[in-house]
Amino acid sequence: MKTAIVGIGLIGGSFALALRDHGLSDEILGVDQNIDHARRALELGLVDRVTPLEEAIDQADLIVLAIPVGAIPMLSIRILNKIRADQVIMEMGSTKQELCEIISMHPRRGRLVATHPMWGTEYSGPEAALPGAFTGRTVVIAEPEASDPQARELVENIYRTIGMPIKYMEAEEHDTHTAYISHISHITSFALALTVLEKERETSHIFDLAGAGFESTVRLAKSSPDTWLPIFMQNKYNVLEVLREHIHQLQVFRRMLERDDTAGLRATMEKANSIRKILE
Amino acid sequence: MKTAIVGIGLIGGSFALALRDHGLSDEILGVDQNIDHARRALELGLVDRVTPLEEAIDQADLIVLAIPVGAIPMLSIRILNKIRADQVIMEMGSTKQELCEIISMHPRRGRLVATHPMWGTEYSGPEAALPGAFTGRTVVIAEPEASDPQARELVENIYRTIGMPIKYMEAEEHDTHTAYISHISHITSFALALTVLEKERETSHIFDLAGAGFESTVRLAKSSPDTWLPIFMQNKYNVLEVLREHIHQLQVFRRMLERDDTAGLRATMEKANSIRKILE
Repeated sequence: MKTAIVGIGLIGGSFALALRDHGLSDEILGVDQNIDHARRALELGLVDRVTPLEEAIDQADLIVLAIPVGAIPMLSIRILNKIRADQVIMEMGSTKQELCEIISMHPRRGRLVATHPMWGTEYSGPEAALPGAFTGRTVVIAEPEASDPQARELVENIYRTIGMPIKYMEAEEHDTHTAYISHISHITSFALALTVLEKERETSHIFDLAGAGFESTVRLAKSSPDTWLPIFMQNKYNVLEVLREHIHQLQVFRRMLERDDTAGLRATMEKANSIRKILE
Repeated sequence: MKTAIVGIGLIGGSFALALRDHGLSDEILGVDQNIDHARRALELGLVDRVTPLEEAIDQADLIVLAIPVGAIPMLSIRILNKIRADQVIMEMGSTKQELCEIISMHPRRGRLVATHPMWGTEYSGPEAALPGAFTGRTVVIAEPEASDPQARELVENIYRTIGMPIKYMEAEEHDTHTAYISHISHITSFALALTVLEKERETSHIFDLAGAGFESTVRLAKSSPDTWLPIFMQNKYNVLEVLREHIHQLQVFRRMLERDDTAGLRATMEKANSIRKILE
């Protein structure tokens, strides 16, 4: 099988490594608007060749989209317009509703499989690609019935071989869930970084004290706006709902602290502790 | 040197391991109100003997307090009342202002060294103790001039031998800084856990999707209320100030998202990205 990966950054590059490690592709073509990224991906051995998009569409059995979500719907349509009946498009974006709506009436909709592997780091670009990244992580396949069974099987086999449990969801359900377990974490981190940076203007050595707890809550604030701005925009209503709830929780905590409501604070923290059983 | 560690949990236990690893103490006595913790600390080899507090005060050259901050001021006074002129008390709490004020007029104030090693995890108890925990982390010595030079030197030598850079600060300065780089991270995590747990009541499989980003922002929500409630209460005014700023940052973000202010969102995220140069 010949695979073309469009967008050879953190996700596309890591996926290329996974394909190689599991012998899933005879040749990997790389497509990237950013010439430096394309050259670096080649140097790093993530892809075998760098080609223009047209050539990739012409030659690849599987075309993988690993680009910012804002660009996925239009590019999906453009590629669907051109592919042959035996080709498959697999996209790896973090939002699903807008894409699935845009492509819903396309006569070749079935050739696209909408997926979201639940892995990422705060870094981006081909240098950020990691071997073994996806193994053990869950992958969502959104609107599975909208894809042709043969196309879906191809993609499912790839993810299963990489060692990823598959969950099936509707696009709407997916976007609600990811707002809660991924998108809000990023907003919280961005806001926390800004809170602390506001303070830094006054005092310089504050950060010598930063321990592991601070690092872990704030590390997502290093994430690229190119990746995350379109995710927040596409998932705006879900993100706003979660953000409202999160701000509410912080306000409740603040009011309890203001009133020295130690019983309330303790109950709140104990309730939050039950996240243990979910994480472990 | 004979050392007594009062509170053989995450911090006290890890400190005991550090003393052993660096040959800093001939014998380590353990004191803990919780009989199970004391027994477990002995089984784990964290301490050589478990003794009542009185015996520890009588025998130890160095008495280390590693208990919740709410209990530190009173216990410090009680021990200061009893110690001989050559003994040293070292406390390892996360807040300093209340303690330093309470003990400020004690005629033996100089025998106590107020320290805060900038390390911790979300776990507690003797089982949570880790070897090598403190090495490479900064330690704050608060109000260094209030301690006798000989007492301070003893403590400084221990921390230097463990490999911890030392920062000197006034108590007030310490509590402001830690509110920003430690206490707020915990509140954010608690609130994030509650936000997501609110949602979980409706949908069960949401957590199968939780990736590494979620885990890292929410892991501090597993922290013990016994440790953190007294920290928040003792550092109430600083924590409230940071909390107000953090809620404000989240509200600004929300308003920009509501208004599709992509330029503002991008600028905000780019500004937050500058936390990189601080973390790396």
